[in-house]
Amino acid sequence: MSTHTLPTICALATVPGLSSVGVVRVSGPEAIALVNALFVGKNLTHEPGYTLHYGTLTEGNRLLDEVVLALFRTPRSYTGEDVVEITCHGSPYILQEVLQSLVRQGAHYARPGEFTQRAFLNGRLDLAQAEAVADLIEARGERAHQAALKQLRGHFSKQIAEFRDELITFASLIELELDFSEEDVQFARRDELERLVQRMLTHVDELVAGFKTGNAVKNGIATVIAGAPNAGKSTLLNRLLKEDRAIVSDIPGTTRDTVEDTLLLGGWQLRFIDTAGLRHSTDTIEQLGIARSRARLAEADLILYIVDPTTTTPQEATIQLENEINWDTNTPILIIINKIDALSSQNNYYTQIAQLINHPILSISANTGAGVQELETEIVHQVEKLAGTIPDALVTNARHYHCLRAARQSLTGVQEGIHAQVTSDFLAQDIRQALYHLGEITGQITSNDLLSTIFGRFCIGK
Amino acid sequence: MSTHTLPTICALATVPGLSSVGVVRVSGPEAIALVNALFVGKNLTHEPGYTLHYGTLTEGNRLLDEVVLALFRTPRSYTGEDVVEITCHGSPYILQEVLQSLVRQGAHYARPGEFTQRAFLNGRLDLAQAEAVADLIEARGERAHQAALKQLRGHFSKQIAEFRDELITFASLIELELDFSEEDVQFARRDELERLVQRMLTHVDELVAGFKTGNAVKNGIATVIAGAPNAGKSTLLNRLLKEDRAIVSDIPGTTRDTVEDTLLLGGWQLRFIDTAGLRHSTDTIEQLGIARSRARLAEADLILYIVDPTTTTPQEATIQLENEINWDTNTPILIIINKIDALSSQNNYYTQIAQLINHPILSISANTGAGVQELETEIVHQVEKLAGTIPDALVTNARHYHCLRAARQSLTGVQEGIHAQVTSDFLAQDIRQALYHLGEITGQITSNDLLSTIFGRFCIGK
Repeated sequence: MSTHTLPTICALATVPGLSSVGVVRVSGPEAIALVNALFVGKNLTHEPGYTLHYGTLTEGNRLLDEVVLALFRTPRSYTGEDVVEITCHGSPYILQEVLQSLVRQGAHYARPGEFTQRAFLNGRLDLAQAEAVADLIEARGERAHQAALKQLRGHFSKQIAEFRDELITFASLIELELDFSEEDVQFARRDELERLVQRMLTHVDELVAGFKTGNAVKNGIATVIAGAPNAGKSTLLNRLLKEDRAIVSDIPGTTRDTVEDTLLLGGWQLRFIDTAGLRHSTDTIEQLGIARSRARLAEADLILYIVDPTTTTPQEATIQLENEINWDTNTPILIIINKIDALSSQNNYYTQIAQLINHPILSISANTGAGVQELETEIVHQVEKLAGTIPDALVTNARHYHCLRAARQSLTGVQEGIHAQVTSDFLAQDIRQALYHLGEITGQITSNDLLSTIFGRFCIGK
Repeated sequence: MSTHTLPTICALATVPGLSSVGVVRVSGPEAIALVNALFVGKNLTHEPGYTLHYGTLTEGNRLLDEVVLALFRTPRSYTGEDVVEITCHGSPYILQEVLQSLVRQGAHYARPGEFTQRAFLNGRLDLAQAEAVADLIEARGERAHQAALKQLRGHFSKQIAEFRDELITFASLIELELDFSEEDVQFARRDELERLVQRMLTHVDELVAGFKTGNAVKNGIATVIAGAPNAGKSTLLNRLLKEDRAIVSDIPGTTRDTVEDTLLLGGWQLRFIDTAGLRHSTDTIEQLGIARSRARLAEADLILYIVDPTTTTPQEATIQLENEINWDTNTPILIIINKIDALSSQNNYYTQIAQLINHPILSISANTGAGVQELETEIVHQVEKLAGTIPDALVTNARHYHCLRAARQSLTGVQEGIHAQVTSDFLAQDIRQALYHLGEITGQITSNDLLSTIFGRFCIGK
């Protein structure tokens, strides 16, 4: 794809608002010429890439600002095109005026994600890497950050692309067989193809299996705080969130927007799922409530089950736990005795319940904070058992997951075809399908619709 | 002042939030070494200033981000020190982690304005220029922007500093006379000193006289919409603001925070003053209301007086105008007949009122928008008559204004002393005072308290 037919684009690359500096990014074949026409300092025409230039932007007689320009030349730039990043004073007025001047010089306002889309079109990033840019910007915890960085650096795409290249070799040999189908020759060795497909299936299976982890890493570990009403579920949640907020907000200017209650613990993001409907009753209507709550619990990656020792005997608590929790899943469950500050003898209660339930139990007071730190340590421990360390290649993106599942189906088809000794044309069809689905991940196969959807979720300026 | 005793500081230089990029600024003697310790790419130690470097920031084994570093070497940087600007992905999480890593390497979090304060301490900017940086960032209209840029570029300080240098020559000659006071010699020629002081007074008087304009340019033209209740004052205000908003918000991501109703017209910022109390009554209590409103009107740089032709006869309107407006000031007043859409014959009303009042009159309908564009043109015309073009040196800062007034008083003392042929020691005292007050403007004379006050109003990262 030639970039010379693309217009030069510009956008604010930083958040608008009063600040020390703001950055306007310009990319395209005319980027340097456009900025040069406004720049009073030196002539940029023959300046090399990776240099900085101090001067003013002046349109006609009108001084816009004192600026520093960062010059990048094709192909060594973010987009692969000529790029100028203009560092202005962080005034919304100035940034707006600079953008308007660039547009008067012939630049176009960039669409969301258009810079990254150009990086993809110019081969600077494959599609999975480009998608990682948006994930990286949005990552709020260390683990999601590491997963996005690894994907950005191509760990995930590289293996896929290598397998795909190997498969292409076989594909071309088999396509060749089709040309000679009358003669019943085999250019592609079936045993070698089978070994390749087997290795690919193993890798794809690992990736597919990792998606639950990847999704939890990227979007947060789905965590349910369960237990009877008034057991102290929201007191505990508030206490956990409060300590997290204190950590997150100790950098001046950093604010959290709480769309949903999420908590960072040990670099993991926990996403709390509402269980407002949780009941322990035999009433028919309330049974529906329990069914709903059970559905919530089934979605959970982690369950914190709160027992209220002031209203529930150890025996009652045991029955509740058996009724409400599906112990057949692998979902980790932490049983937490709350309100230990209100118990005259907490050891007694603990001992009784521990005899009834064969499961580790924690004691806390969400009210006073006693035991909460130990609880947090245990939560992190459980999450790490669940998710493990982040592998180099982790599927965090639902689109990749669906492509991998489709590729797996086609690869299985190839495998079965080899066993059944089907003719080349049947094999070729499954191989083509597998290549298609793997190519969709890295962007070797794309449609305009797909690109619009992917880059449309980026912010402007990226 | 040596910079080598100052710690290396770091701060976020852009607005925090999800965006394409964010910039972390590091300045100080250890800036390059600190960043180098985290940078995986090339060794920065011997890289020249004004260069860009691509690589990753990695703390121990932990990859923080892919970054581009902008390297500036002392003294050719914003602060005059070694400076590294780190362009990261625009993720609040990443920016926070990068800052924390820098602090672990030994950097300090910068206080508000600390970078600009260092630029001042290292002689990169004088104090008036440093103050202009904050004004520049906050400027919302073209005129305030131009005034701040001119001040930043030193137009204002330069003339003050030159005069001060000339006066210092005389001061040293007169101080010399003090050493020979027994001998009654005059090293400083009184006629030359008098001519210098006269030129200085002329310049200072111009600057002082320009402060009303400067203040209006920087903080907005104080505009009062006056007139009887229900004459359509707020309808007019809303119509004016609405059109302004449409202009300001056509850049994606730019939002206005309306602390007070302000309007941009022709690059001028109009600041609307509330006149909720305006009445036209003879009742005693309401007379107090009129007094209050008159005080508001007295503050105004511009008055828009609305006449409601549907409830007020031309004769009544004339009486109101005479009672409520102080016609002795130079404050420009626009008389506006509103609701012309509700008049059966607007020409008739206009003709009658024009015969009674010797003042230009506009007709509008705030409701339909008729005549509003003409009104806007007339407002800009009046403001430009009032403020004129922005001179190269315009006093926009109350601190500078007070220093200039104090300097004027001392200079007048020198002038009177020369005329009265006072002894050298009396002259010397007034000259020292004048030097002191002028030096306060450019920062040649400073106190730590003054610097804290000035730089404390900056944002962090500037």
